[in-house]
Amino acid sequence: MNTIMIWVPVIMALIGLAFMFLKRAWVLKQDAGDGKMAAISDYIYEGALAFLKAEYRLLAVFVLFASIVLAGITFLPGVKTHLLIVVAFIVGAFFSALAGNMGMKIATKTNVRTTQAARSSLPQALKVSFGGGTVMGLGVAGLAVLGLTSFFIFFFHFFMNGSWTSTEDMTVVLETLAGFSLGAESIALFARVGGGIYTKAADVGADLVGKVEAGIPEDDPRNPATIADNVGDNVGDVAGMGADLFGSYVATVLAAMVLGNYVIKDMGGNINDAFNGVGPILLPMSIAGFGILFSIIGTLLVKITDDNAKEAQVQKALNKGNWIAIILTAVSCFFLVQYMLPSTMQMEFFGEGSQEVSSMRVFYATIVGLIVGGVISSVTEYYTGLGTKPVLEIVQKSSTGAGTNVIAGLATGMVSTFPTVLLFAGAIWISYSLAGFYGVALSASAMMATTAMQLAIDAFGPISDNAGGIAEMSELPKEVRTRTDILDSVGNTTAATGKGFAIASAALTSLGLFAAYVTFTGIDGINIFKAPVLAMLFVGGMIPVVFSALAMNSVGKAAMDMVYEVRRQFKEIPGIMEGSVKPEYGKCVAISTKAALREMMLPGILTIGFPIAIVLIGKLVYADNNQLIAEMLGGYMAGVTVSGVLWAVFQNNAGGAWDNAKKSFEAGVMINGEMTYKGSDAHKAAVTGDTVGDPFKDTSGPSMNILIKLTCLIGLVIAPILGSGSESGALASCCEKTEMHSAKMLHCDMSKMITMTKEECAKMCDSLRCTPEQKEVCLSHYDVNGKFVGSASSLKKNCCVHKK
Amino acid sequence: MNTIMIWVPVIMALIGLAFMFLKRAWVLKQDAGDGKMAAISDYIYEGALAFLKAEYRLLAVFVLFASIVLAGITFLPGVKTHLLIVVAFIVGAFFSALAGNMGMKIATKTNVRTTQAARSSLPQALKVSFGGGTVMGLGVAGLAVLGLTSFFIFFFHFFMNGSWTSTEDMTVVLETLAGFSLGAESIALFARVGGGIYTKAADVGADLVGKVEAGIPEDDPRNPATIADNVGDNVGDVAGMGADLFGSYVATVLAAMVLGNYVIKDMGGNINDAFNGVGPILLPMSIAGFGILFSIIGTLLVKITDDNAKEAQVQKALNKGNWIAIILTAVSCFFLVQYMLPSTMQMEFFGEGSQEVSSMRVFYATIVGLIVGGVISSVTEYYTGLGTKPVLEIVQKSSTGAGTNVIAGLATGMVSTFPTVLLFAGAIWISYSLAGFYGVALSASAMMATTAMQLAIDAFGPISDNAGGIAEMSELPKEVRTRTDILDSVGNTTAATGKGFAIASAALTSLGLFAAYVTFTGIDGINIFKAPVLAMLFVGGMIPVVFSALAMNSVGKAAMDMVYEVRRQFKEIPGIMEGSVKPEYGKCVAISTKAALREMMLPGILTIGFPIAIVLIGKLVYADNNQLIAEMLGGYMAGVTVSGVLWAVFQNNAGGAWDNAKKSFEAGVMINGEMTYKGSDAHKAAVTGDTVGDPFKDTSGPSMNILIKLTCLIGLVIAPILGSGSESGALASCCEKTEMHSAKMLHCDMSKMITMTKEECAKMCDSLRCTPEQKEVCLSHYDVNGKFVGSASSLKKNCCVHKK
Repeated sequence: MNTIMIWVPVIMALIGLAFMFLKRAWVLKQDAGDGKMAAISDYIYEGALAFLKAEYRLLAVFVLFASIVLAGITFLPGVKTHLLIVVAFIVGAFFSALAGNMGMKIATKTNVRTTQAARSSLPQALKVSFGGGTVMGLGVAGLAVLGLTSFFIFFFHFFMNGSWTSTEDMTVVLETLAGFSLGAESIALFARVGGGIYTKAADVGADLVGKVEAGIPEDDPRNPATIADNVGDNVGDVAGMGADLFGSYVATVLAAMVLGNYVIKDMGGNINDAFNGVGPILLPMSIAGFGILFSIIGTLLVKITDDNAKEAQVQKALNKGNWIAIILTAVSCFFLVQYMLPSTMQMEFFGEGSQEVSSMRVFYATIVGLIVGGVISSVTEYYTGLGTKPVLEIVQKSSTGAGTNVIAGLATGMVSTFPTVLLFAGAIWISYSLAGFYGVALSASAMMATTAMQLAIDAFGPISDNAGGIAEMSELPKEVRTRTDILDSVGNTTAATGKGFAIASAALTSLGLFAAYVTFTGIDGINIFKAPVLAMLFVGGMIPVVFSALAMNSVGKAAMDMVYEVRRQFKEIPGIMEGSVKPEYGKCVAISTKAALREMMLPGILTIGFPIAIVLIGKLVYADNNQLIAEMLGGYMAGVTVSGVLWAVFQNNAGGAWDNAKKSFEAGVMINGEMTYKGSDAHKAAVTGDTVGDPFKDTSGPSMNILIKLTCLIGLVIAPILGSGSESGALASCCEKTEMHSAKMLHCDMSKMITMTKEECAKMCDSLRCTPEQKEVCLSHYDVNGKFVGSASSLKKNCCVHKK
Repeated sequence: MNTIMIWVPVIMALIGLAFMFLKRAWVLKQDAGDGKMAAISDYIYEGALAFLKAEYRLLAVFVLFASIVLAGITFLPGVKTHLLIVVAFIVGAFFSALAGNMGMKIATKTNVRTTQAARSSLPQALKVSFGGGTVMGLGVAGLAVLGLTSFFIFFFHFFMNGSWTSTEDMTVVLETLAGFSLGAESIALFARVGGGIYTKAADVGADLVGKVEAGIPEDDPRNPATIADNVGDNVGDVAGMGADLFGSYVATVLAAMVLGNYVIKDMGGNINDAFNGVGPILLPMSIAGFGILFSIIGTLLVKITDDNAKEAQVQKALNKGNWIAIILTAVSCFFLVQYMLPSTMQMEFFGEGSQEVSSMRVFYATIVGLIVGGVISSVTEYYTGLGTKPVLEIVQKSSTGAGTNVIAGLATGMVSTFPTVLLFAGAIWISYSLAGFYGVALSASAMMATTAMQLAIDAFGPISDNAGGIAEMSELPKEVRTRTDILDSVGNTTAATGKGFAIASAALTSLGLFAAYVTFTGIDGINIFKAPVLAMLFVGGMIPVVFSALAMNSVGKAAMDMVYEVRRQFKEIPGIMEGSVKPEYGKCVAISTKAALREMMLPGILTIGFPIAIVLIGKLVYADNNQLIAEMLGGYMAGVTVSGVLWAVFQNNAGGAWDNAKKSFEAGVMINGEMTYKGSDAHKAAVTGDTVGDPFKDTSGPSMNILIKLTCLIGLVIAPILGSGSESGALASCCEKTEMHSAKMLHCDMSKMITMTKEECAKMCDSLRCTPEQKEVCLSHYDVNGKFVGSASSLKKNCCVHKK
C-alpha cells in the first residue's frame, strides 16, 4: 500500500486544482459592476492579454530554439540525458505560461468584482479579492506539483520500470526531469524581467506626464497611460511573481529529489524501503503535495467580519491563515519524515567524514526552513515597513534634500543585508549540519510547501490596487476607494514581505541546485584555490550587478518611450483633457508591451549565455579536463548566487524603504519638531528617492531570484556533459578516478581499492560507469578471498593510460 | 657576489629616501608667499597635524592592544610564529603612520608654495606641486621597501642564519614578517576610513551651510568649515591614499615572497641557487626596489614649459613620466626574472597536475600585471571622464530630474563592473596559467613597482586643490586661480584613475594573500561544496556591503555635526559675514576630527572582528577539525574579496561619473538640443547625484581596498593557528593527512605512501612536521629496498588514532 504514496502528490495537486476551479467559478459569478466599470476592466483585461500573447509568441520562438539546443545536448557523446528532456522542457515552459495566464486572467476579472464588492462592504471586498488571489495561488501550486510529479512517475516507469534499480538510473530520471524545471524557470525569467520593465515603464510614464506635467491625479481616465499602468500591476506583480514562485517551487522539489538520490547512493545505492526504494526522493514531493492541502485550509481561514476594520485586522486575518498553513505543514513534515525515511541514514559530510543521520534530524531541517520563511518576513518588514526606525530615518534625512534621502535609502538597503545574510548563512549551516545538503534542500521544500497560500496573499494586493484604480476611474463614491485603499495598503506590506520570501526561497533553492549540480557532475567539490575557479567566482559575482543595471536602464528607456507617446496624445488629440474624447489607451499598452519584450532580451542572453560560454571556453582551454571545467562553472554559479542574493536584498529593501518613506508624508511626519506633509520640500526629496527605488524593488531586485535559480538550473542541465554520464565519458571518468589529472584523484580511488573488498570495488566500477573491460581489470587486482593484492604500479599499467 | 642581491632593495630604498629628502629640501626652499597666504596655510597645516595627532593617540592604544593579542597568539600551542611578529607589527604600524605623517606635512607645506609659484607661471606651479607629490610618493615607497626588506634580512639571519635550510623555516620567517604588513594595513584602515569620513563631513558641512544657506562661494574665508574642508583634502586624499598604497605595496611583495617559498617547496624544498637558495623569494623585493629607481626617473620627466598650457599638456607630461617608469619596470623584470629564477621550475597546479614553468613565463606574468595597471586606468576613465558616453548619458538623464540622474549614475557604476571584473578575472586566470599563484602575486608586484610614481601623480591633485583654495581665500589675482584650476582639473582625473589602480592592486594583492593563506594553513584548497564554507562565502560577501553602509551613514552623521556648528557660529559670532571677525576654524577642525575618529571604530571592529569570530565559532563547533575551520575562513576571505572588488568599482565609478556629470554643466552641455548651464534644473539634479556620489567615491568606495587586504592579512596571521605549525599541531596534521576527518584525505596520503619510495616518504613526513615517532611508524611500512609493504589496515592501526 505504501507504494501508492507516489500518487499522493498528484492527487493533492488535483484536489488543489479542483478547489481552484470552484473558487474561480465563485469569483466569476460575482457582480462585475455597471457599464463604465466593466469597460475599464475590459481595457485592463485586454491589455494584459495583449501583452501575454505578444510575450508568448516571442517565447514560443525561444522555446523552439532552446529545444533544439537541448536535443543536441542529449546526442553529445558522454551524455546519458534522454531526449525526453525536450518534452519535459516544453511542458514545463507551457505549464509556467499557463499558470501565468490563468493567474492574470483571474486577477483582471477579480479587480472589477472587488470594486463592486467594496461598494457593499469591506469584508466582502476582501473575500472577493483574496478569492482571486487564492485561484492564482492554487493554480500555480497545483500545476507545479502536478507537472513535476506526473513527469517523475512517467520517467520512473520509463527508465526504471517503476521500481528501484540503481542510483545511476535514477540520476538519468532526474537529469531528464530537470528539463521541466528549466522550462518553467526560463519562462519565469522573461515573465519577471519583462513584467518588471512593463510595470515600471507604464508607471513612470503615466506619472511623469500625467501627474507632474498635466497635473491630473493618479488613475485618471484622461491619462492615456493609465490603462497600461493598471495592466502593469497585473503583468509585473501577478504574472511575474507567479512565474517566479512556480519556478522556485519546481526547482526546490527537484533539487531535494536529486539530493535524496544522493542519500541513497551514500547508503550503498539501495535502501529497500516500502516506497519502491525511493522514499527520500518521494519525500519532497509529498511535502509539496500536502502543502497544497494546508494552503487550502489556510485560505479558508482568511476573513473579516467588521465593515469598519482597519489595516491591522485585515493583516491579522491574512497572518492567521498563513500561520495555520505553516504549522500544519510543520506537523505533516514530522509525520512524513518519520513515515517515508529510513530511521537512520548514512550521509557523507565533506571534510567531516560519514555520519549517521536520524530521520528526526531531517525533520529539524524542515523546521529550519519554516523558521527562515517566517523570520525573513519580519526582517523585511523591519527595514521597509511604515513607521519603523530605518524608514523614519530616511524620512528625517529627506529634510536636507534628495541627496541625503537617497544616501539614507541606499544605506538602509545595504545594512539590511546584514541580518538577512546571517539568517541565510545560519540556515544553510544548521540544516546542512542536521542532514547534509539534503537537509538544505528539504528546508527549502518545507518553506515552499505553502506557496499557494503565499501567492494568494501576494496576488490579492495588486488586485486591490487595480480595484482602487477602477473605482477612481469610474468615479465611484469615496467610501469605495477608502475600502480598497485599506486592502491596497495591506497589499503593499505583503508585497514587501513576499519579496523577502521569494528571495529566501530562491537562495535556498539555488543552494540545493548547486549541490545537485555537484552530484550530477560527480566532482569532489569546488575548490576556489584553483585560479580559474576563483576567476569564475569573480565573473559570477559581477553578473547580478550588470543584470540589475541593464534592467534599470531598460526601465528608463521604456519609460521615455511612454512619456513621448503620452505627450503626443495630449498635444495631438483635442478633447482629452476635457474628458470629451477618450485617449488611445491601446497605443500606450502596445508601447509598454513592445519595450518590455525588446528590453528583456539582453538580460536574458546574459543569463543563459554566460554559463554556456564558460563551458565552451573551458573546453577550449582544458579540453577534456571536465573536472576543472565543472568546477569553473560551479564557481560561477556560487558567485552568481552569493552576489545575486546580496543585490536582491539590497535593492528590494532599499526600494521598499524609500516607498514607505514617501508614503509616510501622506499622514504627515514630524521632522525637526515640525509636522510635514505632502507637497513639502522634504516630501519632494522623498519622491526622488522613491523614483530611484521603483526599478530597484519592482524590476531589478526581484529579477535576481530568477537569475540565480536559472543560472543554477542551466548548470544542472549542462552537468551531464561535464559529468561521468556516457560510455566514452565513463571511460575517461574511470581513468580519472583511478589515474591522472589531479594527483589527488589518482591516489583517491586507488587507495579506495586497497581498502575495498572485491565486491565493493565492483560496485564502485558500476557507479563510475566503467566499461566491462575496465571493471574486469579492476577486479583482477583482488585475490579469491576478495583481498586487494595489486600494487600501484600494476594498477597504473593495467587499468588506465597514464595521461601526460 | 650574487648573495649581495639581498641588499639591493635596501639600497634602492635608501636611494629613494635620499632623493626624497633632496626634493623635500627644494620644495621647502620655495617661497611660501606673504602673510595672509602663510596664515591660511598654517591653519591647514595645524588642522591636519591636529587630526593626525588625535588619530595616532587613538591608534597607539589600538596597536598596544593588538600587540598583546598577537603576542598571545604566538604562545598558543601549535603556533610556530615567533614573538618577533609583535615587533614587526609595531614597526609596520609606525612606518605606515610615519609615511602618512611625512606625506601630509609636505603636502600642507607644498600647497601654499604652489599658490605662490602659480603667481609667476604654470610650469613652475606644476613643478612645485608635483615636487610635493614626489616627496610623498618616494617617502611611502622608500619606507615600505626599507622596512619590509630590512625585517626580512633580519629574520632570515635570525631564524635561518642567513642561508637556506628548509621551506618550513622560511615559512616561520614569512609568518613573522606578516606582522609588518598587518601593522601597516591596520593603520591604513583607520587612515582611509577616518580620512574619508573627515574629508566628506567637512566638505558637505561647508557646502550645505556656506554655499547653500549663506550663499557664499566655496573656499570663502568667512566659512568656519573652510579650513576643515581643506584639511580634509589632505587627510583623505593624501594621508588616506598614501597609507592605502603603503599597505598594498608591502602586502603584495609579502604575498609574492610567501608564494616564492611555495615554489621552492614544490621543487623539493631546495633549489640551491646563487642567491643563498632564496631567489624566488628575493625576486619580488628586487622588482620593488628597482621600481623606486624608475619612479625617480619618471618623476624627473614630468615637466611642461609652456605657460599657456592646458589640461591636456599637463596630463601628457604626467603620462609620459608614468609610462617611462612602467616600461623601464617591464625591462627590468625581464632581466631580473632571468637572473634570479631557475630557468625552469616545477609547479603544482591544482587539478592539472605538476607543470614545468620556465622563468620566461614568470616574466610574462609580470607583464600581465603591468597591462592590467594600464588598462584599468582607461576603463575607469571611460566610465568617469568628462565628455565620455556614460557621463554624457547621466547629463541627459538629469533633465528629467534628480531621480533619473541618480538611477543613471548607479547604473553606470554597476555596468562598469563588467569590463573591470572581466579584466581582473582574465588577469588572474592568465597569470595563474603562466606561473601559478606565484605568477598572480608577481603580476601584482610588477604593477605595484611604480607605486612611488603613482602616488606622486595622485598626491599632486589635492595639493593643487588646496593651492587653489588658498588663492581664493587670500584673494589673489584671478590668473593664479586659473592656473591652479588647470592643475586641479588634471588632479581630478588622476584621482579617478588612481582609484582604479588602487583597487586593481588591492584585488591582485588579496588574491596573492589568499593563496599565501592556503599555503600557510597547509590545506588542500577551499571547497565551497562544504556548506559551512559556503555559508562563510555568503557572510564574507555581505561584509563590504554593510561596511559601505556604515561608512556612508558615518559621513551623514559627521556632516550634520558640522552643519550645526557652522550654523551656530554664523548665528552667535557677529561680524563673520562682514569679514570683520574671524570664524573659529579650530572648532570645526575639532568636530571633523572627533567625528571621524568616533565613526571609524565600528567599521574597524567589523573588519577585524569577523575573521576572529569565525575562527572562534569554528573552534567551538568543529573543535580540532582545523582543515574545515581554515576553509571556512578562506571562504569568508574569498567572499569579502569578490564582493569588495565589485562594490569598490561600483561605488568609485558611480561617484566619479556623477561628479563629472555635474562638472559638465560648468562649461555648458547640450540637452535635448538646448545648451544648459549651471543653475538650471538639470544642474540641480546633477548636484543631487554628486551628493550621493561623494561618500561613494571618497569614503566607502576606497575603503573597500583596505577592507579586502586587511581581511586577507588577518587570515594570513591567523593561519598558523589553523595550520600544521606546531608539535601538537603537527601530530594532528600528520594524522589528518594520513587518516581521519575527510575520507578523501585518508586515501590521499595513504596512497601517496604507496607510490612513494621510503626516502620520499621521509621527506613528506618532514614537510608535514610529523613527530619523530610518527615518522618512524610511517617509514616502518617500507622494506629494505624502499618499497611500500604495508597495508591500509596496518597504517590505520599503527600510524594514527582513528577518529570518531
